[in-house]
Amino acid sequence: MIIAIDAMGGDHAPKEIVKGAVEALKYIESDIMLIGDENKINNELESMKVDLSRIIIEHTTEVIENEDKPVVAIKRKRDSSMVRGLDLLKKREIHGFVSAGNTGALLAGGLLRTGRIRGIDRPAIASVFPMGDKMGILTDAGANAEVKPRNLVEFATMGAYYGELVLGIENPKVGLVNVGSEKGKGTTLVQETYDLLEQSDLNFIGNIEGRDIPFGTADIVVTDGFTGNIILKLTEGVAKSFSNNLKAVFKKNILSMMAGLMVKKGFDDFKKKMDYTEYGGAPLLGVNGAVVKAHGSSNAKATMNAVLYTEKYINSGVIEKIQNYVENRSEEIE
Amino acid sequence: MIIAIDAMGGDHAPKEIVKGAVEALKYIESDIMLIGDENKINNELESMKVDLSRIIIEHTTEVIENEDKPVVAIKRKRDSSMVRGLDLLKKREIHGFVSAGNTGALLAGGLLRTGRIRGIDRPAIASVFPMGDKMGILTDAGANAEVKPRNLVEFATMGAYYGELVLGIENPKVGLVNVGSEKGKGTTLVQETYDLLEQSDLNFIGNIEGRDIPFGTADIVVTDGFTGNIILKLTEGVAKSFSNNLKAVFKKNILSMMAGLMVKKGFDDFKKKMDYTEYGGAPLLGVNGAVVKAHGSSNAKATMNAVLYTEKYINSGVIEKIQNYVENRSEEIE
Repeated sequence: MIIAIDAMGGDHAPKEIVKGAVEALKYIESDIMLIGDENKINNELESMKVDLSRIIIEHTTEVIENEDKPVVAIKRKRDSSMVRGLDLLKKREIHGFVSAGNTGALLAGGLLRTGRIRGIDRPAIASVFPMGDKMGILTDAGANAEVKPRNLVEFATMGAYYGELVLGIENPKVGLVNVGSEKGKGTTLVQETYDLLEQSDLNFIGNIEGRDIPFGTADIVVTDGFTGNIILKLTEGVAKSFSNNLKAVFKKNILSMMAGLMVKKGFDDFKKKMDYTEYGGAPLLGVNGAVVKAHGSSNAKATMNAVLYTEKYINSGVIEKIQNYVENRSEEIE
Repeated sequence: MIIAIDAMGGDHAPKEIVKGAVEALKYIESDIMLIGDENKINNELESMKVDLSRIIIEHTTEVIENEDKPVVAIKRKRDSSMVRGLDLLKKREIHGFVSAGNTGALLAGGLLRTGRIRGIDRPAIASVFPMGDKMGILTDAGANAEVKPRNLVEFATMGAYYGELVLGIENPKVGLVNVGSEKGKGTTLVQETYDLLEQSDLNFIGNIEGRDIPFGTADIVVTDGFTGNIILKLTEGVAKSFSNNLKAVFKKNILSMMAGLMVKKGFDDFKKKMDYTEYGGAPLLGVNGAVVKAHGSSNAKATMNAVLYTEKYINSGVIEKIQNYVENRSEEIE
């Protein structure tokens, strides 16, 4: 098997991306393909003095930048590392594709170049991050600002498969993001979705409120891409603001600095728990192939973890399960 | 002037509510009216041995509970403390009304009993909480799950008046919650709202993302009530989860407990900054009268602060400014 990595995507490309991908070889059975400017990639590889036997280099001349308009970029930059990866995945010349590049472009390209799983209306971003003392999934984390109930049910189903088969969460609890816990709360969209989820085979635990999300009340947190994006970034913002305030408390004087040293180990453990680089990127569920979005600011460790989880994802059978689900769905929902 | 307080609403009613309202008398010029079961209110007052010269007791026999359905409760419980307060406000027998009771009922009652400001389509909850090193307003924080662009513009305008005239924020910066900072991002709703806000007289700074909210990038954070509710509760949840983890770090062993004592003062200051009880409740902007929702778990201090801010709100001229705005609005927006 071959896992391809977009060597040109992300804030720290190509250096950290190449480094992380090579590092991953120690833990995976697949070979890796590095897609991008071959000179730049070779420079990185030479400086690392690595064994090249399990590394393929695929040369491309263009790069999709973060500022590029997603659909335009995918249509025009045909010789970009991202488009090449998605095309090779469609042809099954590779088995998975990881990119830390432009999220919108990866989504658009997933749809336009690789294609959807037949029967899935809209792919979703499934963002994996710590909720309580374990990992959870937020889906859709930003792919679809406007959705229908059937989309949310598909997000929930795909997220539950990924949670169970890739992250190892047993019988994952599915929660619907809403403004109150009782049935009947919220917009027409969530009310209709509630009914559909109740009738589904999922382990649906009902509505969950904003304050429940960080405590891991649900394993699979289901919402539209607008709300999901706000949830993801607000969580990041509150945590960051909190930790800035914390640092200020410890920097106040000699005594507080000493106190800081005394609890350093505890804080390091806590930071590790909250560290996104540990959690291996976000799969684009519903795309017909293992496409994984790594965080834009991915360093080598984050890239490595994304590659590791991509191999798990390929081997998990999640895509086949989604295909099965779509084919055996009892009725056409609209 | 008379500020009335719903003595029966909130988790700690009537004790903490009565205590806080009485405490507020030290700082306000208005008299207070305590609405509720007169026996219970008198018991509390007696145990406090207070001067009764500036206190009016208004007896009611019913209580709207948190579990009650808002509209049903407002229609059926005609002799409840909440309905009485809203009715007296409509008749201008009182000048402001504070309740820590059922939020949905207070909103429904604000509309059905007190009434809207003529020309304002939908009242909104303006939640005041710390953003960065200052106070900011989130509006709508949960009143309207589904809205039109004109509603969001009205929320922004009313929030800006309140921010300026009650909280003292000079030329408040208005930000529209969205999934990206560039114009053209997000749902049709936010795109259309963006255009209207750009044409308005507000100090509109454009879209703000979830991660910007806690840093106070905007003073007035504008969004629909669904997203606003999630933002409010998620902020609460992440902060709570973070602080639980923090406590665990300090409780680990003797050394870490010592460290905890060494930074206690710094943490206390930080906690005070984040303490909702300091911020005086959330006005229901668009209702034709000063109706303020205090947090359901309000203690005496939170109640006192809510009463203090209610007097500021009454004296601020915010309601007159909203009336003026509506009358002079250049064109009918739909």
